[in-house]
This record gives sequence, C-alpha cells and structure tokens, in this order.
Amino acid sequence: MQTIVECVPNFSEGQDAAKLETIVQALLAGPDVHLLAKEMDPDHNRSVVTFVGTRESVGEAALRAIGRAAELIDLNNHQGVHPRMGATDVVPFIPIKGVTLAECAGIARTVAEQTWRRFHIPTFLYEAAARHPKRKNLEHIRRGQFERLREEIRTNPERQPDFGGVHLHPTAGATAVAARKFLIAYNINLNTSNVQLAKAIARKIRASSGGLPAVKAIGVELKARNLAQVSINLTDFETTSLGTVFDAVAKEAAQAHVTIASSEIVGLVPRQAIEDAAAHYLKIQDFHSDVILENRLARVIGD
Amino acid sequence: MQTIVECVPNFSEGQDAAKLETIVQALLAGPDVHLLAKEMDPDHNRSVVTFVGTRESVGEAALRAIGRAAELIDLNNHQGVHPRMGATDVVPFIPIKGVTLAECAGIARTVAEQTWRRFHIPTFLYEAAARHPKRKNLEHIRRGQFERLREEIRTNPERQPDFGGVHLHPTAGATAVAARKFLIAYNINLNTSNVQLAKAIARKIRASSGGLPAVKAIGVELKARNLAQVSINLTDFETTSLGTVFDAVAKEAAQAHVTIASSEIVGLVPRQAIEDAAAHYLKIQDFHSDVILENRLARVIGD
Repeated sequence: MQTIVECVPNFSEGQDAAKLETIVQALLAGPDVHLLAKEMDPDHNRSVVTFVGTRESVGEAALRAIGRAAELIDLNNHQGVHPRMGATDVVPFIPIKGVTLAECAGIARTVAEQTWRRFHIPTFLYEAAARHPKRKNLEHIRRGQFERLREEIRTNPERQPDFGGVHLHPTAGATAVAARKFLIAYNINLNTSNVQLAKAIARKIRASSGGLPAVKAIGVELKARNLAQVSINLTDFETTSLGTVFDAVAKEAAQAHVTIASSEIVGLVPRQAIEDAAAHYLKIQDFHSDVILENRLARVIGD
Repeated sequence: MQTIVECVPNFSEGQDAAKLETIVQALLAGPDVHLLAKEMDPDHNRSVVTFVGTRESVGEAALRAIGRAAELIDLNNHQGVHPRMGATDVVPFIPIKGVTLAECAGIARTVAEQTWRRFHIPTFLYEAAARHPKRKNLEHIRRGQFERLREEIRTNPERQPDFGGVHLHPTAGATAVAARKFLIAYNINLNTSNVQLAKAIARKIRASSGGLPAVKAIGVELKARNLAQVSINLTDFETTSLGTVFDAVAKEAAQAHVTIASSEIVGLVPRQAIEDAAAHYLKIQDFHSDVILENRLARVIGD
C-alpha cells in the first residue's frame, strides 16, 4: 500500500460479540482494508476497532461500518460507563505513511458529510478536522451525551452538527469524526505505592496544567502490583518525545527519592518514536533513519 | 528477497577506480545481488565493497568478483598501509534475514573451496567459518602478509591453507573467507581532548583486556575537533548492547569528571540494536518488536 491511514472507530456495543463481528465484516468488505485490532469492553459497553486502509479506501470502509452499526445498535437501549452519543461514537483518522494530517482531515470531512447524506446521522468534526477552535475538543462536543444532546441540538445553536439538522438520528444518535496524529499510550511505574506522588507528578508534567506540550497524564494506583503509576497519553511524540517525558517523570520522582521501576507501551508505538529515544540516550549525533540497515536494504532492494 | 546475506569483500586496489568498477560489475552480473556501498582508500590501497544477496546468490557473486580481481590485481606490485595477503584479501559473509550464522559458514566454505578449484587461489577459513579455534583470528592467518606467507606456506604446516597446497597464487596471493555476525562501528566522543583518558577507557572496556565481551576498542584523538574518542567495534550487539557499552564508557569517564559529548554510528546499525537501546533506557518491560506499529503493519499487510 503506497499510502496508509489508520482509523480507530469506537462503537457503542461492548457485550454482543456477534454484532461487533458483523460491523467488522462490513468494514472489511472492500479493497485495501486490513484489521489491526479489535477490543470489546463490557463495562464500557463499547468496542474499539483499529484498521488501516489507503487514502482512497479508508473512508469508504469507515462508512460501511457506520451504516451497519446504525442498523444494529440502538442508543435508547444502551448503558455503559464510558460517555457516548452515537452507535458509531467516534471515527478518528490518523496519518501513518505517505499521507498528511491535512489529507486525513479531508477524509474526515468527506466521511462526516457522507454519514449525514447516506444514513441521516448528524456528524461533528473535531481535533485536526474541526472547523472552529471550539470544536477541537471531543468532550466539549459530547457533553451530556446522547440523552442531553438529543434535547439541546433542537434549540442551542452551539450544539448544531457540522453536517445535519436539529435532530439526532433516533437510534444511532450522532457521530464525531476527526483527524489526529498518532497517540502513544505510555505508562511509567514508580518504585512506590504512593499514588499521591504519581498524581502530583502527572499534574506537574501534563500540558493542561502548564507542563509538557502534547502530554496528558493521570496518577493511578496498581493495587495488584502495589505500584503507583503515571499513565500518559502522548498526543504528538514529535513535539514531546518518549525520552523527554521519561526524563521529566524521573526528575520529579527523584525529588521524592523515588526511582522508576519500569514502563509500558500500551498498544502500538511508531518506529520513529523508538529511534528517537535510542538516539537521545545514546547521544548519537546526526542520527537519521538511513543509518539503520533494514531501512537501507528496503530502499536498495525495494521490499 | 526471502533470505538476505551481506558480504563485505576487501580488494587490494584503492587507487584505480576503473579496476574497482570492473570488479563490482562482475559481482553484480548475476541475479539477486544488490550493492549497498563501495569505498576506496588510497593510503590503504584497498577497497571495501558491501553488497547483499540471497543464500543462493551471494556466494556466486563473491566468486565472480574474486575471479575478476585475480585478473586485475598483482600483489607483487601492491603497496599500502593496510596489511593484505590477496588480490581479494577477505570475504566475510554476514547473516541478515532468514539465514543463520551456521548457514553463512557453509556459504563461506563453498566459496573458499571454489576459489581454489576455479582460480587456483589458496583459501583460509576464519571466524565462524574456521575449522580450528586457532584459525578464528584473521590477523593470525595473515601474519607477515603476502610476502612472508609466500615463503612460510611452503614449509610450515601451521600456515597451510584450508583449500590449496604449498604455493600462493603468483599474483593473487591467498584469500581469507569468513562468516561472522554483523559488526557495529560505534564511536563515543568525550568532552575532553585528553587522549590518554580515551585510551584508558578503551583498555578498561574491551574484551581483550578483560572488559566487556564482543567489544574491541581503542582511544584516538580527533585533532580537528579537539576531542578524545573511544572508537569501538561491537562484534555481537546481542551479547553486549550499545546501551551497555555507552553506560560503561560514561561510568569510566565520570570517574575522571568527564562527560560524553556525543556518539557516532559509522556505517549501518541493525534495527534491533536501536530498539534494544530504546527499551533499555526507557525501562520498557516486556518490550518486543511487535509493539512497533510498522512491524505490525508489515505482518498484516505483508509488505
């Protein structure tokens, strides 16, 4: 595949595996689409599907899944601990190879428009696909969830969708469509069970409280392992690297005489982020991907 | 290519670019062979060619080059600062993908045998292709170079080739053929111009003086940059990693109150070595290549 776009739709069904499978099969029923992962969470009553396609195929694949989900999921009968407003709740597009974030925003807009046209599901654009700064934040768009949005969309101009009118779809609700960069989920485990320290470090390093840009962080307790953890989402590893966030946590922990026990990558990490970390710690000057044997081979051999 | 073997023949010609080109063209005149790099050094009067082939193609490619070099290079008229005993001086085979070190030793033995049969050039097997522990070391085999070996091979049983008799080839000398692991050339620059410190650190960390296994190191002075450098060959990065050798140099330097300024990869580095370094410094638990997005994609998409 010359271009690769990742798409991670979230569906409001986390209990009925057969329904999810039907949605996934619809998604895969076209050219140039590959499933990377699917996860169901019964408490959240939500599933997360990760797939890739080309610039040309990824949007139509998402639309096939959105249409099938609208047939199978009724928000009126849906309960779960995770906030949601649609049968297909969110559809982010992420540039991976040979495609820009702006192009992914274009795909997001097309999918949002077609979701309204084909299925009469109103759509909201967020993050890099948002048309107004106010709409960048998903939580802002989804405030009050399906039940409250159903009322407020009728009368409040601020809650109008980007595509659609003053009514939600009666069973499928509304869908939020985005373009964003690849997100790295990265947890750092401290050599202490003191969750207050983890929370204090999280506050210190996260962007929302004036810390490192592109860092979201919370402190949590891992009871089974008797460890406190700083749980991090790195929304732009080219802005703040894995090494930078690790060093910041290590520095804050050291002030409390605590060391880092280990860290964990949750899900996937782009190769570039790993290469950057190696170059950072080994102080390799003028490091570039081309010094890596396999990259050179791929260019020479062309496979 | 399903299997990839790297081969790095060294030829005793570092001044006549046309001759080297003729040898390289012979090498490439067959299927499944790709040139990665070629370097000539006029002072050494030697050239180093790096190419890859499959398990099936790489040996024949090397033999085509050995045959052509024997036609073009006369050791009787060769002078240079680098030790040498043959027109084609050394031919190491290195496993890269889908092939073992033992299989590369098999290729080396075939090439050594055929070099004798086809071109009447006696051959010596060294490193992982050696038949006796005494023969592992190239410097031991090449002792006294072309001129002395030509005399000693006649009378000294210890200097007998693995393939061939009691005479060198009159103009092409003898060739040493090996299998070995990928070698990483890695230099660490100290924040000091004190070359004695670099030499002391090199002695401390290298395997030959009881330091880290699979590490060769010397201390050198970089006059133009006013820096002392520990210049390292890592002959098995799975035994001693980049991170281990960096940390060892940093620790020794710190005892002299010196820090590491930067480091350099010379040539190429396998991706695994870079991933290992990232996992080491970030303390990533249970790290494996499969958490890297591009690796997962390659498996799913198959390209």
